[in-house]
Amino acid sequence: MTLPTSLDDLLKLAAQTGERIAPLAAGTDAGRDDGHESYRILRESGLLALLVPRHVGGAGLGFGDYWRVLAELGAHHGAAALGLNMHHVVIGALADADGTRLPPAAEAFRTWMLGEVVNGRKLFASATSEAGRGAKLRGMRTRYRLSEDGAHYILSGRKSFVSLAGVADYYVVAAAADNGTEESGEDTGEVSHFVVAADDPGVTFGAVQHMAAMHGTSTAPMTLDEVRVPRSRLYLGVEGMSLFKVVREPHWMVAGYTGAYLGIAEAIFRHTVDHVTASPARAESPVVQQELGRMSARLRSARALVHEAGDLVTAERGSLEANAMVHAAKYAVGEVGPQLAQDALRLCGSAAVSRSHPLERLIREAQFAHVMPAKPQECLEYLGKAAVGVNLYDARAFAW
Amino acid sequence: MTLPTSLDDLLKLAAQTGERIAPLAAGTDAGRDDGHESYRILRESGLLALLVPRHVGGAGLGFGDYWRVLAELGAHHGAAALGLNMHHVVIGALADADGTRLPPAAEAFRTWMLGEVVNGRKLFASATSEAGRGAKLRGMRTRYRLSEDGAHYILSGRKSFVSLAGVADYYVVAAAADNGTEESGEDTGEVSHFVVAADDPGVTFGAVQHMAAMHGTSTAPMTLDEVRVPRSRLYLGVEGMSLFKVVREPHWMVAGYTGAYLGIAEAIFRHTVDHVTASPARAESPVVQQELGRMSARLRSARALVHEAGDLVTAERGSLEANAMVHAAKYAVGEVGPQLAQDALRLCGSAAVSRSHPLERLIREAQFAHVMPAKPQECLEYLGKAAVGVNLYDARAFAW
Amino acid sequence: MTLPTSLDDLLKLAAQTGERIAPLAAGTDAGRDDGHESYRILRESGLLALLVPRHVGGAGLGFGDYWRVLAELGAHHGAAALGLNMHHVVIGALADADGTRLPPAAEAFRTWMLGEVVNGRKLFASATSEAGRGAKLRGMRTRYRLSEDGAHYILSGRKSFVSLAGVADYYVVAAAADNGTEESGEDTGEVSHFVVAADDPGVTFGAVQHMAAMHGTSTAPMTLDEVRVPRSRLYLGVEGMSLFKVVREPHWMVAGYTGAYLGIAEAIFRHTVDHVTASPARAESPVVQQELGRMSARLRSARALVHEAGDLVTAERGSLEANAMVHAAKYAVGEVGPQLAQDALRLCGSAAVSRSHPLERLIREAQFAHVMPAKPQECLEYLGKAAVGVNLYDARAFAW
Amino acid sequence: MTLPTSLDDLLKLAAQTGERIAPLAAGTDAGRDDGHESYRILRESGLLALLVPRHVGGAGLGFGDYWRVLAELGAHHGAAALGLNMHHVVIGALADADGTRLPPAAEAFRTWMLGEVVNGRKLFASATSEAGRGAKLRGMRTRYRLSEDGAHYILSGRKSFVSLAGVADYYVVAAAADNGTEESGEDTGEVSHFVVAADDPGVTFGAVQHMAAMHGTSTAPMTLDEVRVPRSRLYLGVEGMSLFKVVREPHWMVAGYTGAYLGIAEAIFRHTVDHVTASPARAESPVVQQELGRMSARLRSARALVHEAGDLVTAERGSLEANAMVHAAKYAVGEVGPQLAQDALRLCGSAAVSRSHPLERLIREAQFAHVMPAKPQECLEYLGKAAVGVNLYDARAFAW
Repeated sequence: MTLPTSLDDLLKLAAQTGERIAPLAAGTDAGRDDGHESYRILRESGLLALLVPRHVGGAGLGFGDYWRVLAELGAHHGAAALGLNMHHVVIGALADADGTRLPPAAEAFRTWMLGEVVNGRKLFASATSEAGRGAKLRGMRTRYRLSEDGAHYILSGRKSFVSLAGVADYYVVAAAADNGTEESGEDTGEVSHFVVAADDPGVTFGAVQHMAAMHGTSTAPMTLDEVRVPRSRLYLGVEGMSLFKVVREPHWMVAGYTGAYLGIAEAIFRHTVDHVTASPARAESPVVQQELGRMSARLRSARALVHEAGDLVTAERGSLEANAMVHAAKYAVGEVGPQLAQDALRLCGSAAVSRSHPLERLIREAQFAHVMPAKPQECLEYLGKAAVGVNLYDARAFAW
Repeated sequence: MTLPTSLDDLLKLAAQTGERIAPLAAGTDAGRDDGHESYRILRESGLLALLVPRHVGGAGLGFGDYWRVLAELGAHHGAAALGLNMHHVVIGALADADGTRLPPAAEAFRTWMLGEVVNGRKLFASATSEAGRGAKLRGMRTRYRLSEDGAHYILSGRKSFVSLAGVADYYVVAAAADNGTEESGEDTGEVSHFVVAADDPGVTFGAVQHMAAMHGTSTAPMTLDEVRVPRSRLYLGVEGMSLFKVVREPHWMVAGYTGAYLGIAEAIFRHTVDHVTASPARAESPVVQQELGRMSARLRSARALVHEAGDLVTAERGSLEANAMVHAAKYAVGEVGPQLAQDALRLCGSAAVSRSHPLERLIREAQFAHVMPAKPQECLEYLGKAAVGVNLYDARAFAW
Repeated sequence: MTLPTSLDDLLKLAAQTGERIAPLAAGTDAGRDDGHESYRILRESGLLALLVPRHVGGAGLGFGDYWRVLAELGAHHGAAALGLNMHHVVIGALADADGTRLPPAAEAFRTWMLGEVVNGRKLFASATSEAGRGAKLRGMRTRYRLSEDGAHYILSGRKSFVSLAGVADYYVVAAAADNGTEESGEDTGEVSHFVVAADDPGVTFGAVQHMAAMHGTSTAPMTLDEVRVPRSRLYLGVEGMSLFKVVREPHWMVAGYTGAYLGIAEAIFRHTVDHVTASPARAESPVVQQELGRMSARLRSARALVHEAGDLVTAERGSLEANAMVHAAKYAVGEVGPQLAQDALRLCGSAAVSRSHPLERLIREAQFAHVMPAKPQECLEYLGKAAVGVNLYDARAFAW
Repeated sequence: MTLPTSLDDLLKLAAQTGERIAPLAAGTDAGRDDGHESYRILRESGLLALLVPRHVGGAGLGFGDYWRVLAELGAHHGAAALGLNMHHVVIGALADADGTRLPPAAEAFRTWMLGEVVNGRKLFASATSEAGRGAKLRGMRTRYRLSEDGAHYILSGRKSFVSLAGVADYYVVAAAADNGTEESGEDTGEVSHFVVAADDPGVTFGAVQHMAAMHGTSTAPMTLDEVRVPRSRLYLGVEGMSLFKVVREPHWMVAGYTGAYLGIAEAIFRHTVDHVTASPARAESPVVQQELGRMSARLRSARALVHEAGDLVTAERGSLEANAMVHAAKYAVGEVGPQLAQDALRLCGSAAVSRSHPLERLIREAQFAHVMPAKPQECLEYLGKAAVGVNLYDARAFAW
């Protein structure tokens, strides 16, 4: 199917697709299935090409509108939206460069990758985090070196928290140049990214991690054992650009999934309203109306911030103000979800803790926003430093 | 001077004008002067015509952009921005009708009033509240009747909390049709609005009220003793439209001044940042950066909500969603100001309570947002009722 | 074993017993066992007689000290502490009457029941809630009538949320006098309580409810089908005293389990501190210390309130001030648990959402405080009414 | 008059005295008088001897009960209670040592000072803070040296924020040993305290500082110009004990006034309740009752923490847990006052910002708790360090 290009149509498509995957959320959450069916439906929907420029067959969505679409999906199936976001993180950083003339190798890479998405409906994922180091680029232990004949990069290491493990076709793996030193940590080389195929020899995945929720993201550890990747799969054809990109344009790394968590918060509110309106006595209670009003005000604040931040990235990607807004939006969704969860507990009582009620799952899901990087303290640090005038384009100012 | 029409130019003009009136804020706050000089400068700036349609000589600002301009002024001199807003509440309701064909009497009224603003630089104000009844239209005790010859309306009553008292040229006075009953209250006639001139015989003002702050709004009680107003000064030429208008399009009544309080919150943040950055030890403290980051995130949330709400009024004035957003924005500025004030107390210590420091005044000013209608409980009630699906176009659903 | 009587010794015993049951919490929570082993250990510990007066062989604990002991247990195994509390709710209301001369039937009942606890180590539970009505006494559908020969009461009905289902030896069942009307609801007779034995014919339990946590309370629906109870098992030998007792001395009904939730909050704090101190970099971070300090302050406030409220019940059981404090304490533990949970999420990140970490369970458990009656809105209503001087001894003032 | 010794009688006396000074609060706050009359009444009441041991003629109050009495006064006249506390800070540190055998010089000092309070009704004050350094003992610029004949200490320096300036009879002045170095700061000698009489030559006071509130504390800068103090007025007869005392037993320095701010918070609540109950419609509103209930719960939490902390100091003065509780209590009153203030704004509207209403003053007063040392960040730091096991008896662990 061809993807529409107007935001309204895309939101409609997201809503329809959301309704198809929503019934799958509870079963996957309970571990009764692996959640892959949701991704099959998402692939089929065409939504993998949301960010791909229109002239190569995608919807060409800006960052702000991407968050709107992601929120629509997240309201239906938070885990699937989060998983899908990992694909868009990878594509988005590439799509951001649309309109920029690139060196031939980068151009070839971009053409290949976008083609895989548009024509091949291929799903991409990202593998950055490592145990004990989080998603930070510094001190990375996964290493790469060039093969003797120069035709391949050879990667070895262990990644943790790889979403879409066993689901995606490709994984963009961050690795540090192997400069011969021990794995002692600090003096590693610059970090580059490589596209590893799911079926590249040497790639294996561990068991999906047992967390309080989000089983549907299919998050597992990934091991790379001397995996050979052709040079053409060096991300954007250049080594060592990773940190630079993260520092200048942190929106994907810091906050790509923000829309999904907004969607989860929206769903908490909607289910609470549904619970309240099921009983006229509750719906007409002035006290209950005040509580709902407070939830509504909180949600509207967070939503407006997400919208304003996302649209600012669309308008002036990488400006200090856009970067600050992105950190603020990420922080805000991490606060508002659990806050609405507590409001829902007050208003819905035992319904909110019954395994048979969607709220019970949503409340667990909302907790993950603060757990995923950028952590709340990092967001506040960024905003605080911005306020006092620290130069945040200087990579030393921030611990990535 | 001719008013520019681009938002950027208007924001620049507001900033320049703000810088002229900012030095006056402390003196007026302390009661050392009556604050009229600020309004002289505001008249001179041309900003009285912000909302007047361009084709009749104004800047033709939409509601959302109006709030942006008002916030700029509010950050410099909160009380003057609040006072100025009363003018725009009156003009705005009229300007909203631009492009709508009106009956001849209404058309004549509109032409006259906009002309007074553009050509005469006349300042308007609003007189609605009454002691013990707040700004509610129901149960109003100020009465009007037609003179025997039908040429005038005759108004009598007592208004409280009239801003711009003794400053404005005209006051739009709400009054109930005198249907012969006693002032017993409930069975009063429909409410209409009349333009009363400052020098109409029978108009007197009491002393400016002694409040914790906002002396510069020049708020005082107003007495109307058999004031004769020509028929041509019936607001929009129609009797009894007031409640209908408030219910359908409450943005002016409920929340016109929201931008001013956003500006006050912005100023609290800026002064806190200035205080922190004056000491490198403070500015580099990770703990202080976290606190500033939290303030920044709070402020950005409220600001984004104000922007989104205001722009939605511009785009779809009177829609239920726009009305709900307006209540949310009003509530949010009432929360964020005092919250930032408490943050400022933690970060700035005795500076924040020293009469010589602007923060001390701003902290008092921020308290007024929740005091002015719509009250926080009313905002939450509106949002709660919207959530459970109450028909908010039905005047009985809400206590105006 | 004989129970010690000094608070210090009892706290030590609770800590030792807590350490024996703590390792069982995770397995029961995951549904891998039915949790009965914890109650076997608790029976064995002698803690069932905590509230039994000393002169009949118990520890004679006052309400405030009972909460201290319960908190110690709750910090080790929240669900078991909650379950155990149901036993003490039943015994406590009886023990409260110690020192009061009772009519012969009541005296005989009390002697029998305390003997069952002290000599028989029997575990009691309470069955009050009904589907759709919560724990309110009004409108109860479970009915009782006297048998034709007057020797038995015959009970029929369906209780929901019966904790210790299948674990306790006896259940104190609330039922309304069957006055011949239909089950239409409102005009039911006064409510009395009856002690039903687990093996009385006609008693059956449904499946344990599938909730977000607290599997270890063994909470299930209970059906009573023409259950015959000897007259001697009428609670305290008097019919129709229930509502009177709840209104005058609501501490057991409203808030008996408060100590258990305080313990859960304590455990969240301790595990967060353990997580932080496992990494010197974290433990020495000024930002982390601030966050821990804030958690500590919150916890200390809630704890002090619980202590003061509990001790006030000990000192002046049933005074309006004691009743108000009990509502405040119950509300406070419902707020502080989820608040500390969110703080823990910020500080511990993925540890706090990993199924293998105790925090993950504790965060789910903390949510239940607000779900159990008295609900947060009811607590605030009580406090608000107390503030404005409503007579809260009047049963009509409050919706029990 | 002789002071009673039971807490109930002392609370009654405090309430009676409070009622005498309450009517003076507004005038002093507005700067219409110097507030000295309140202190005349307080002297007359005998409350200056609250902490003086009974065997030398005082009421012998413990710290916890002192806070209860101070709260009673603070609820009537916050500024006067704060001023009075400065007297008790000085006496309290001395009274703490009751029952400890002291060296002869210290014994003579103690006998003299307590005699001045009991027999002479003398009012003491404290002069510690210096501009730009706050109340920290380190880096103090006020210096002392022994006169050539060894009979006097000679003090010179400038103190800021000296409460009871021009009211007290004596001022306990902190000064660093003059070791001949420049006033460069860091390498100053140990700090000692000296009792300076108001009429000692060389003592002058500046103008009372113009703050947002608390004019009634009569806080002004104090200059000491070669003030000669007899050796017998060295505090406790020993040099260099100050830092040791503050580190081991910080309750007076960190939080002596906590009771006064609790009283201010109590008064905010009472005035809000009075405002609400003046209108039956408000008092019966379920929404208003919820808000009052929330205020009540907040206040009860803070109050319980203050009680528990104070009583713990009475029971185990200087224990790490007592010290931590004192920091928690101080932090809590700094939070709860402004929080209740914002609640009052929501509930009372314009009454809360009218200069003629006590709430308006109380709201300003409540802000000062966070401004006075220990600052909120310092309190949280102490609690955070206590949680992670830092040795807080080590003076290097904390920045006093």
